Amino acid sequence: MANSRFEYVRNFEQTDSLLPNTWIVVRIDGRAFTKMCAKYGFEKPNDRRALNLMNAAAKAVVTDLPESMIAYGVSDEYSFVFHKSCNLFERRASKLVSTVVSTFTANYVYSWPTYFPDTPLSFPLPTFDGRAVCYPSVQNLRDYLSWRQADCHINNLYNTAFWSLIQLGGLDSKEAQRTLAGTLAADKNEILFSRFHINYNNEPEIFRKGSVIFRDYELVDSECQAAALEIDSLAEPMRQSKSQLEKDKKKRAKARVVVEHMDIIKDEFWDQRPWILSNRPGKVPKEP
Amino acid sequence: MANSRFEYVRNFEQTDSLLPNTWIVVRIDGRAFTKMCAKYGFEKPNDRRALNLMNAAAKAVVTDLPESMIAYGVSDEYSFVFHKSCNLFERRASKLVSTVVSTFTANYVYSWPTYFPDTPLSFPLPTFDGRAVCYPSVQNLRDYLSWRQADCHINNLYNTAFWSLIQLGGLDSKEAQRTLAGTLAADKNEILFSRFHINYNNEPEIFRKGSVIFRDYELVDSECQAAALEIDSLAEPMRQSKSQLEKDKKKRAKARVVVEHMDIIKDEFWDQRPWILSNRPGKVPKEP
Amino acid sequence: MANSRFEYVRNFEQTDSLLPNTWIVVRIDGRAFTKMCAKYGFEKPNDRRALNLMNAAAKAVVTDLPESMIAYGVSDEYSFVFHKSCNLFERRASKLVSTVVSTFTANYVYSWPTYFPDTPLSFPLPTFDGRAVCYPSVQNLRDYLSWRQADCHINNLYNTAFWSLIQLGGLDSKEAQRTLAGTLAADKNEILFSRFHINYNNEPEIFRKGSVIFRDYELVDSECQAAALEIDSLAEPMRQSKSQLEKDKKKRAKARVVVEHMDIIKDEFWDQRPWILSNRPGKVPKEP
Amino acid sequence: MANSRFEYVRNFEQTDSLLPNTWIVVRIDGRAFTKMCAKYGFEKPNDRRALNLMNAAAKAVVTDLPESMIAYGVSDEYSFVFHKSCNLFERRASKLVSTVVSTFTANYVYSWPTYFPDTPLSFPLPTFDGRAVCYPSVQNLRDYLSWRQADCHINNLYNTAFWSLIQLGGLDSKEAQRTLAGTLAADKNEILFSRFHINYNNEPEIFRKGSVIFRDYELVDSECQAAALEIDSLAEPMRQSKSQLEKDKKKRAKARVVVEHMDIIKDEFWDQRPWILSNRPGKVPKEP
Repeated sequence: MANSRFEYVRNFEQTDSLLPNTWIVVRIDGRAFTKMCAKYGFEKPNDRRALNLMNAAAKAVVTDLPESMIAYGVSDEYSFVFHKSCNLFERRASKLVSTVVSTFTANYVYSWPTYFPDTPLSFPLPTFDGRAVCYPSVQNLRDYLSWRQADCHINNLYNTAFWSLIQLGGLDSKEAQRTLAGTLAADKNEILFSRFHINYNNEPEIFRKGSVIFRDYELVDSECQAAALEIDSLAEPMRQSKSQLEKDKKKRAKARVVVEHMDIIKDEFWDQRPWILSNRPGKVPKEP
Repeated sequence: MANSRFEYVRNFEQTDSLLPNTWIVVRIDGRAFTKMCAKYGFEKPNDRRALNLMNAAAKAVVTDLPESMIAYGVSDEYSFVFHKSCNLFERRASKLVSTVVSTFTANYVYSWPTYFPDTPLSFPLPTFDGRAVCYPSVQNLRDYLSWRQADCHINNLYNTAFWSLIQLGGLDSKEAQRTLAGTLAADKNEILFSRFHINYNNEPEIFRKGSVIFRDYELVDSECQAAALEIDSLAEPMRQSKSQLEKDKKKRAKARVVVEHMDIIKDEFWDQRPWILSNRPGKVPKEP
Repeated sequence: MANSRFEYVRNFEQTDSLLPNTWIVVRIDGRAFTKMCAKYGFEKPNDRRALNLMNAAAKAVVTDLPESMIAYGVSDEYSFVFHKSCNLFERRASKLVSTVVSTFTANYVYSWPTYFPDTPLSFPLPTFDGRAVCYPSVQNLRDYLSWRQADCHINNLYNTAFWSLIQLGGLDSKEAQRTLAGTLAADKNEILFSRFHINYNNEPEIFRKGSVIFRDYELVDSECQAAALEIDSLAEPMRQSKSQLEKDKKKRAKARVVVEHMDIIKDEFWDQRPWILSNRPGKVPKEP
Repeated sequence: MANSRFEYVRNFEQTDSLLPNTWIVVRIDGRAFTKMCAKYGFEKPNDRRALNLMNAAAKAVVTDLPESMIAYGVSDEYSFVFHKSCNLFERRASKLVSTVVSTFTANYVYSWPTYFPDTPLSFPLPTFDGRAVCYPSVQNLRDYLSWRQADCHINNLYNTAFWSLIQLGGLDSKEAQRTLAGTLAADKNEILFSRFHINYNNEPEIFRKGSVIFRDYELVDSECQAAALEIDSLAEPMRQSKSQLEKDKKKRAKARVVVEHMDIIKDEFWDQRPWILSNRPGKVPKEP
C-alpha cells in the first residue's frame, strides 16, 4: 500500500513511560495569568470566582480520572496525584499530562460563564501547561504537597499585606514593596493588625490554605506512620480478585468528590483518610 | 523559612528537552471519540460541522503560536509542526505538548456552540491527548505528513464505501464489513460507482485530503529540492539582526492563517510555499 | 575565540539523571560470551577460573566505588547496587554505567593472566555492556536480586543436567535437549541422581547460588521487615555531621570486601547485615 | 516457576533509544587522569607513549565496530562517530556507550605494557567514562569535531608555553600561570619564540592537531558541500541489495584503519574522503 513507504516515520516516536511504583504528580499552571488577571479584572489579592472556577475544573479532573487520589490547588496552579500503582496510559508521561491539561482546560472554559456571568471570554482563551514528576516514597509525596501548601501560605500572607497597604493604606506598589522588604511573617501579621485591624488568621481558609480535592469516605482513626510504611513497602499493584475490583469501583463511583480548605501538612489529615494513600476505598457515608 | 525543608522535592523534576535542530511534531487525538460521535450524533462517515470545529480550534493554535509552521488534520486528530530552529519553552516536550493540547481544547469547547448550535455540550466534555515527536530532516518531516494524508485517503475511501453500503445499500455493519474485506482501492471505487453512482473523486476535498493550515503569502516559483537541502544543512537558528526579526514578526502577524484541503504529498505544495520550511516570511499579498 | 562559533554543539547533550531516592542497579553482561567460551576453552557447564575472574573484577568495582552496597554475579553477568541516597556523578546514567563497565573491564583484562596463566588473551578482547535500572522500594530491589538468583538456580540445574547427559551419558546436544524438554526441577534432580549418582545439592555453592559481594561487618540480630520499612520511608540522603561522615568513611575503608556464595532470597541474609540497606557501616570485626 | 513472581522487575527497565537518522557521537574521558599522569610519570605537556596508547585503543574500537565512521582524540579523551543510519544495538544509548567504553578500556589495559614496558600498572587501574550525543546535520557533526580540534589547539598552545616557562625558563607554576594570564595566541607564540626559540608550528602534529582515525580508501576529488547536502537529506538507512551490502562489508574489512594527525576543520579533509559521511566504502588502494 502507498502508505507503507511513509510508515517508517513511526520509529521516531520515543517512549516516555514513568518509572513504575512511584507516585505521579501532574502539575498544571495557567499560562500568562498575570495578563489574564488584568484582562478580566480579577480581584486582588484573591478572586473568589476565579478560585471557585479552578476548583470546579479540578473536581472534574478527579471525577473523570478515578486514578487521581488527591489534588491540591492554589492561585492558578493545580497538582494532581496519581497512585503509585496506577497504570493509566501505561504511565506514558505525555498522555497523562495532556489528558489532565485537556480535561482541566475543557472544564475551565465550559464553566467560565457560571463563575463569570458578566465577563465573557475572548481570544486568546485561558490555557494551562503541565508536567509530570515522580516521587518514590510517601514522605516525598507528602513533602511535595507540603511544599505547595507552605508556598500558598507564604505568598498569600505577602499578598494580603501588599494589597492592604495599597487598597486600604493608599500606598503605591513601589512603596508597598519597600514596606514589606525584609519583613518576617510576624512582621506582616503585625502590619496587618496594627494598621488595618486585620487578623490574618481570620482570613478565609480558601485563601490561606488553598484547596484540596479527594473522594470522601467516613473518617477513621488510623496511625499514619504505620500506614505510610506499609504503602512504601508495596512493590507492585495489589493483586485483587475481579469481584473485589468491581466492588471498589462501585464504592469509588458512589463517593462524593469534595473540595476542602484544610491543613495537609500535619499528619491528622492523612491519619483520618487512609484511603488516599492506600487506594482502598473507605466506607461510603450513609445518605443523611 | 518553613518552606525550605520541603524544597528538595524540586530535584525530582527531570528535564525533557527535545533534541535541537530537529522538526517537532505535536500530534493530538480526541479521547474516546467513537463514544462522542454517538453521544452528539455526528454524521457518518464525515461530519462537516465537527471537521470545521476541529479546523477552527487548530487555526487558533497556529495563530497563537507563531512558531508552528504548518498543521495537518484529519478526523479527530491534528498534527502541529514546529520549525527545527524553534526554541519555544526551551523545547521542553511537556510544555509544548500541554500548551498545544490546552489551546486546542479551550478553542474546541469555546467554539462548540458556533458549530453545534442545537447540541449543547454535557459532561464528560470532549478532550484530547497529545505527544511530541522529532524529525531530523525535511524528508522525514514530509514523509510524516504524507503518512497522515495517505492514511486520510485510505480511511476515507473505506468509510465512504462502508457507510454507502449501509446508508444507501441497506446492509448492516457486518455485511458491509464483509463486502469490503480484502478489496483494493480500485474495488472500492468501483463499488461506489456501480452501486451508488458515486464518483469518489467528486467527494469534497475536505473529506478526501484532510485540512492543512499555514500562514499565507504570495506563491512563488522555487525548487523545493534545493530549498529542502539548504534547510537540512542549517545547523542552528539563523542569526538575524533585531530589526530583521522585528520585520519578520510584523509580516507574520499580517499574514492570514488559512485552512486548505489540498495535496501535501507532492512537491508542488512545498515548491510554491518555501516559507513553511524556511521560516522566512514571504510577501504579504496586497489587500484586494 | 575561534572555538566559540563551534561551542553551540554542547547544547545537544541531554541530561540523563536517574530519579532521586531510588535504588540504582547497574547490570553488565559479557558481549558474545558464547564465542569467548569456545575460543578460550571454558569448561562446561561452569568454568571455575572464569567465575573467579568475574568475581575478582567485580570485587574491584565494589572496592573502588564505595557507593555500591552489594553486587551479585552469575555466569557472565554482574549486577551492582547503588544505595538510593547515592549521588555519585549526580546520578547520571551514562557516567554510572560507563564507569562500572570500564572498571570491571579493566580489572578483567588485567587479572586474566592470574586466572588463565596458560591461555593468553588475543583480539578481539573480552568486553562487557551495561545498563542502569531504578527500583523505588526495598522490596523491588530484593525482588530484582531474587530474580537473578532464581535464574542462576534454574539455569545451573538445567546446564548441570544437560552437560552430564553429554559428558557422562554420551548423548549429543540434540539428544540431551530432547531428554530435558518439559522436565521440572524434580525431574532434573532425579536424572542427575539416578543416572549419574550426582546429588545436585552437593554441587559447589558458587555454581548453585552465584556470587555475592559486600562489605563485611559483625553480623547482627535485626528485624529485616522493620528495617526495610524504615529505609523505604527515607525521603532523602540522611543529613549527617561531617565528623560522622568521616567516621563512616573510615569504617567503610577498613571493612573487608568479601565474595560469598549464599542465599540472598530469604530474609536471613538481610536480617543479619542491615548495613547493606541502611548504608550505615556496621562494627568492623577485630583482627583475629 | 518460582522465578515468575520476581519477573515483574523487568518492567522497571526503561528504553533509551537515540533518535533515528542522527549522527551519534560517543565521547569517552579518562577518569582522574591528572592523578594518573602523576602516578605513572607522564611527560609534560604531552606524553607520546600515552597518546600512542590512546590511539591504539581507539583504533581497536573503530576496527571492532565497523559502524563507527571516524574517531577523534586529544589528551585523555576520544570521540567516536556512528553513522546516522547506524542501527547497532537498536541505537540504545547505554549499550552503545558501554560497549565503546569497554572495548576502549580492554585495549588500553591490554596494550599498556607495549607502550609503558617499564611502568607496570597498579590498582586502581585506569578507567574511562562516556556519554552519547546526537547531531542531526552534517554541519552539526563537523562543528562538534571542529570544536574538539580547536580545543586541542588552544589547550596545547597554552600547555606548551606553560611548561616551557617551567622546564626551560625555570619559573614555578604560579609564575608561569601569571605570565600567561590574559595572553592571546600571538602572545604565546611570541613568548615561545623569543624566550625559547620554539616555533610552535614546528611542534609535532600529534600534539597540535590531535589524532584522527578512519578507514582509508583512495582519495577522491569531490565537492563536500554537495555531498553533505545529499547526506543530510537522507531520510533513512539506504536500501541496498544483499549482494551490495556483502560487497561493502568486504571492502570495509579490507580497508586499513589509519591514525592521522591533520586538520579536520577545513573542507579539504572531508572533500577527499566522501566515504566517511556517505558510509559507501571507497576504492581500496592496491597493495604496493
